[in-house]
Amino acid sequence: MPTQFDPPSGTRDFLAAEFEKREWAFGVLRTVFASYGFEPLQTPAFERIDVLLGKYGDEADKLVFKILRRGEHEASGEADLALRYDLTVPLARVAAAYSSKLPMPYKRYAIGSVWRADRPGRGRYREFTQCDLDTLGTRSPLADAEVLCAHHDAVSGLGISDFSILLNSRLVLSGLLEVFAVPADLGPGVLTSLDKLDKLRPEEVIAELAERGLAAESAGELVATITAADAQDRIRTALKRSETGTAGLDEVDELLALVSAQVPAGRIAFTPRMVRGLSYYTGPIWELVAAGGVGSVGGGGRYDRLIAHLGGPDVPATGSSLGVERILMMVGEDDAAARRGRLDVAVPVLADDLAARSFTLAGAARAAGLRASVYLGSSGKLGKQLRWAADQGARWCLIYGPAERDAGMVTVRDLDSAEQESVPADAIAEFLAARAGACDA
Amino acid sequence: MPTQFDPPSGTRDFLAAEFEKREWAFGVLRTVFASYGFEPLQTPAFERIDVLLGKYGDEADKLVFKILRRGEHEASGEADLALRYDLTVPLARVAAAYSSKLPMPYKRYAIGSVWRADRPGRGRYREFTQCDLDTLGTRSPLADAEVLCAHHDAVSGLGISDFSILLNSRLVLSGLLEVFAVPADLGPGVLTSLDKLDKLRPEEVIAELAERGLAAESAGELVATITAADAQDRIRTALKRSETGTAGLDEVDELLALVSAQVPAGRIAFTPRMVRGLSYYTGPIWELVAAGGVGSVGGGGRYDRLIAHLGGPDVPATGSSLGVERILMMVGEDDAAARRGRLDVAVPVLADDLAARSFTLAGAARAAGLRASVYLGSSGKLGKQLRWAADQGARWCLIYGPAERDAGMVTVRDLDSAEQESVPADAIAEFLAARAGACDA
Repeated sequence: MPTQFDPPSGTRDFLAAEFEKREWAFGVLRTVFASYGFEPLQTPAFERIDVLLGKYGDEADKLVFKILRRGEHEASGEADLALRYDLTVPLARVAAAYSSKLPMPYKRYAIGSVWRADRPGRGRYREFTQCDLDTLGTRSPLADAEVLCAHHDAVSGLGISDFSILLNSRLVLSGLLEVFAVPADLGPGVLTSLDKLDKLRPEEVIAELAERGLAAESAGELVATITAADAQDRIRTALKRSETGTAGLDEVDELLALVSAQVPAGRIAFTPRMVRGLSYYTGPIWELVAAGGVGSVGGGGRYDRLIAHLGGPDVPATGSSLGVERILMMVGEDDAAARRGRLDVAVPVLADDLAARSFTLAGAARAAGLRASVYLGSSGKLGKQLRWAADQGARWCLIYGPAERDAGMVTVRDLDSAEQESVPADAIAEFLAARAGACDA
Repeated sequence: MPTQFDPPSGTRDFLAAEFEKREWAFGVLRTVFASYGFEPLQTPAFERIDVLLGKYGDEADKLVFKILRRGEHEASGEADLALRYDLTVPLARVAAAYSSKLPMPYKRYAIGSVWRADRPGRGRYREFTQCDLDTLGTRSPLADAEVLCAHHDAVSGLGISDFSILLNSRLVLSGLLEVFAVPADLGPGVLTSLDKLDKLRPEEVIAELAERGLAAESAGELVATITAADAQDRIRTALKRSETGTAGLDEVDELLALVSAQVPAGRIAFTPRMVRGLSYYTGPIWELVAAGGVGSVGGGGRYDRLIAHLGGPDVPATGSSLGVERILMMVGEDDAAARRGRLDVAVPVLADDLAARSFTLAGAARAAGLRASVYLGSSGKLGKQLRWAADQGARWCLIYGPAERDAGMVTVRDLDSAEQESVPADAIAEFLAARAGACDA
């Protein structure tokens, strides 16, 4: 039951633990992408509305969050800006705006929020993070191999190993349509139906193909070929009858050879029935599929005409997008991330006139590289303050009460062992520096 | 002259160098805040419109970016969501929503974009990053000292040393108004005028005070006291006549004592004429002022009633906000950040049938912890590819042409010295690992 204090429908508040986990994951991704020579790019949350609308069709346009004009124009009810729907339209605009400043080919990564007014559901949000890798300005298959391997390494880097990569090519699909004599106007619909072969039974897909107007014989033969035990061999043989199909097979085999040294054997496979819904792909396409029913966690391909279609320059391009939200659900609690959110040193405050001294002790701990805080509550009791220290996950308490003041000492309590030792007040910085070193190791 | 490809007015695209600089700065800030035991919080870009509006007055409401309702409601021209205007209203909502899950006191930091439909200008944007530190749920002056010192350390951590901190208290200001017999209804206006003493001449401020309805004698005496060479002594003496003023002085002196061990002497000073415009402060207030005409780069204070006013729980609070955009303008190009965006290893591709081998060499370099990329352009000429490598800032080129293939070697070219050496192909991983180690050092 949502309350007035919940975040808006489909959005989330990230408190400390979740935030740290996400930051850790994004850090891993950035490191992997930089290791391939991809540059970061960050664009504004909103774009002018004409930049955004009309690029992905009416259905997508309906999901765009539009921003009202301001001031005297607000009453018009018109929108002049809109929250970005993906990271590709802004990339096309940037490619047009800074063409002379950007290296060509331009290899960029972007990790950022996008907004879609979709119906929220499990793992589906209205504000979510996208993670895109794209290379603009080259037809080299090496560029396809780079984005594919970089996303592979990114998922691996997050500790996920139980996933596979389905590889295909739009040219293979075109070749299949040609060989099985699918009329051109039925092509897109036929591919959409074939894409369902991982969910529907073959007879159901054949029925759907017939409904779309495909001759019963073609439909049956097509599905039989794709679902056969020796589908790969049969499709490879069939495609030899088509020039486009042959080119597609070459493309797939070349990419398989390029990535073979970096993607473990068996993790990537030519998958002729894999279609990827989006019609803008022009060459190789791939999908990252996680085991355990999670399904697709990313994918991409070559899209040589999209950047121009989106209003950018007419450059060939290839790219891959990771479903970060799904992937994050697969990443376990990270110990290091959890630890980052905890204190090393807690400093009780045992009397008002000792508060300044406690504050200085916390400062000395920070100067030694430790995370430290004084007690800010209202209890003057040590027992209660020690419980606070334990709640904060602190390793040590620095106790400075009237007895310590009189003796010129600080009591250092190890909260794991409950052992205490007295350290001369003027030697505490040195003592903490030694502890900080041990803490790093 | 803006073009259709520029980002919307008042927003910016961050290409690689600027992005890396910002990420580096945010990393420094996060480390400092975590060292004080502050937890991160990230809230959605937008809030329900009723959460945002009516909290900071009509002027602020006009600057809020409002989001149109969607679907069939879009035509109504009504807004149901709005981009966040600051990070404090979301904090108040979070404090109400998760009260039982949050530690109390709740010490949180937030670094995130906020959006204001202000007139854009130099250093003033419609999308900009705020960096807030707040502690909710305690009246302890230690909490004020913590946020103040943490922001001090954050600015220092960014390599900025030429700044000072002006310290005052709302109670000091109330005491001054009381001592100089300013009628209650004139109070806020008088403070606004006094705040201009760093820009206007004393006579001008006196005239403005008179215009506001303050008796000429009071106005003259007030300004004379504040601008006197021995203003501090005169004000301290004057304030003794007011209980509120005395409490304010105590507050200021206590905070000065608390931070004295961590803020260098001379960098923080009691500044009675410093008002800070916002009326919601209830105790100590401070402002971080950078030298060289940059002016205020941050500030904050205690605001014990604001969280309840904003719709959150009725808890005392203290906080500080950094003007990140201004501070970033003061941060020079960071060498480490610039370096992060560059390649270590560039790998030319000298023949189509050697491309896979070049791609594998780049992979070996990455496995050794180096940033590496193959050449993606269309030239087959080594000279052109070496220029590309130099443009990328690479340290080494790994050259694998027909000669190298025949000899089973890789030519490693040091781009700084232009020296080359031959390394057996099967020993290249080891060779690169040694170079990577030297690179880190």
